[in-house]
Amino acid sequence: MIIALSGGIGGAKLALGLSRVLPPEELLIIANTGDDFEHFGLTICPDTDTLLYTLAGLDNPQLGWGRADESWAFMETLAALGGADWFRLGDRDLALHVLRSHRLRAGDSLSAITDDLRQRFGIGPRILPMSDDPVRTQIGTDQGWLDFQDWFVRLRAEPLARAVKFAGVEQVRPQPVLLEALRAKPRGIVICPSNPFISIEPILAVPGLRDAIAASGAPVVAVSPIIAGQAVKGPTARMFEALGVTPSAAAVAARYGDLLDGYVMEHGDDGAGITPRVFHAATLMRDLADKTALARQVLASIEALR
Amino acid sequence: MIIALSGGIGGAKLALGLSRVLPPEELLIIANTGDDFEHFGLTICPDTDTLLYTLAGLDNPQLGWGRADESWAFMETLAALGGADWFRLGDRDLALHVLRSHRLRAGDSLSAITDDLRQRFGIGPRILPMSDDPVRTQIGTDQGWLDFQDWFVRLRAEPLARAVKFAGVEQVRPQPVLLEALRAKPRGIVICPSNPFISIEPILAVPGLRDAIAASGAPVVAVSPIIAGQAVKGPTARMFEALGVTPSAAAVAARYGDLLDGYVMEHGDDGAGITPRVFHAATLMRDLADKTALARQVLASIEALR
Repeated sequence: MIIALSGGIGGAKLALGLSRVLPPEELLIIANTGDDFEHFGLTICPDTDTLLYTLAGLDNPQLGWGRADESWAFMETLAALGGADWFRLGDRDLALHVLRSHRLRAGDSLSAITDDLRQRFGIGPRILPMSDDPVRTQIGTDQGWLDFQDWFVRLRAEPLARAVKFAGVEQVRPQPVLLEALRAKPRGIVICPSNPFISIEPILAVPGLRDAIAASGAPVVAVSPIIAGQAVKGPTARMFEALGVTPSAAAVAARYGDLLDGYVMEHGDDGAGITPRVFHAATLMRDLADKTALARQVLASIEALR
Repeated sequence: MIIALSGGIGGAKLALGLSRVLPPEELLIIANTGDDFEHFGLTICPDTDTLLYTLAGLDNPQLGWGRADESWAFMETLAALGGADWFRLGDRDLALHVLRSHRLRAGDSLSAITDDLRQRFGIGPRILPMSDDPVRTQIGTDQGWLDFQDWFVRLRAEPLARAVKFAGVEQVRPQPVLLEALRAKPRGIVICPSNPFISIEPILAVPGLRDAIAASGAPVVAVSPIIAGQAVKGPTARMFEALGVTPSAAAVAARYGDLLDGYVMEHGDDGAGITPRVFHAATLMRDLADKTALARQVLASIEALR
């Protein structure tokens, strides 16, 4: 079993690659839920949904979120009626949110709902929210603590992120399925090229999970989301700068500390001073061939570390 | 002030006519909320919405409900994900339901939300839900008691309606605005050509309302929803048959009993045995001219009764 920890777009690209080179029963994808939020009474799970849409081949590569075959009649009408339109909900995307929110209110678990959606979308590998209990990432800025989507989408991640907290994470329960997979001698653990601060660290903050990963005995390999000092997408680089750290692949590796056994970074990026074993690869994933090639390289690095 | 009691499509047609021949401040439209229901966690108010859409000129005359400029991407996707699709929610219609449901959960009243929507839609006269407290019509059939929309939409009103009840109506509060309007010597009260059993009687069942109407001193004039023994639309005729009553304009008048001072029915329909004063008119409203002409006739009948 390969266990992959993933945020949204970058992580989902590698998860898609892994899903094409591994049998479905040998891949377990753990989705960050720290970005989840309530909007108009709907529970929205952006990273989980990006994973679902990407693995179903329904993702919108232009936007980097939502569905490719989308329309916006709902959103246009909502705005005309005076509803807040800073978080754009497509007509098709909305079906997923309405269905999930309704089932959550009826008492179904987020993992059961996500698994049903996965099957409806015809996706092979399991996609598991990091916990069925809510965690809500908040960003500390000069304007005070902001809810993640408020900062990220409404304010376009513009207020400098001086701190991050995962509200409620101390109380949440890890997924029994994940703990069991970690105890059952997984072949390797992949940290996808996602933002460490807001996509991976919420997962690692689930009580007991970091220890369970370390205790699994499996090699832990991260893929750098930073190429030539720049984030492929999103605020990763700016978040390092706000902490007074020069963004680099090495800075991400340092952030994960002794959790890592291996680190996959772009050809030509400087691996000096990185503690885990470094593997260089082509990490920019533009098409499916890039994604499967990187997935194979990550799996090869895991084999090399075993 | 003219106060009009209305259900969905037929009532909304006359309400539109009245709105074109009266100054906005002289018309108060009371909407049946017995058809309201919760679906996927959304509070849906079919009669109120038909009134809003009709008076805003956004109604869909082909369907008889919803909006004319509608698309169905949400519904298609919901069905593909396994969601129940017997109640069709258009992409634009959905914006209204999401916004209203969210505000209801936040504690806003149905009347305040409806009034904001009315203003957003640029509608002049006030549209007031019969109560801000929920009433839920149920239909007694051979299959037991069914929720109204379950019977009406999902089962296409096919199980014979042997009884009707308005669950919760004993506890609801009438609208203070309506009681005040009734005390302020209204010019007349119009019962629109809606289904008496499921559109008008829920309104009249609101505690104190029937008495307040009778005590207002204003002429009460109903318009028959039955023309030549047939309902223009919907299950009115079949509901009379299930009660062992031959459907007719006269049967509707008898149903309202001594509440009526005047009764407007189609030219040629038999007014024999009808207690209130009968006015014959062209009651089939196909276009706006029909609607305003009928509205003028109804207002003339009120003047004749004063």
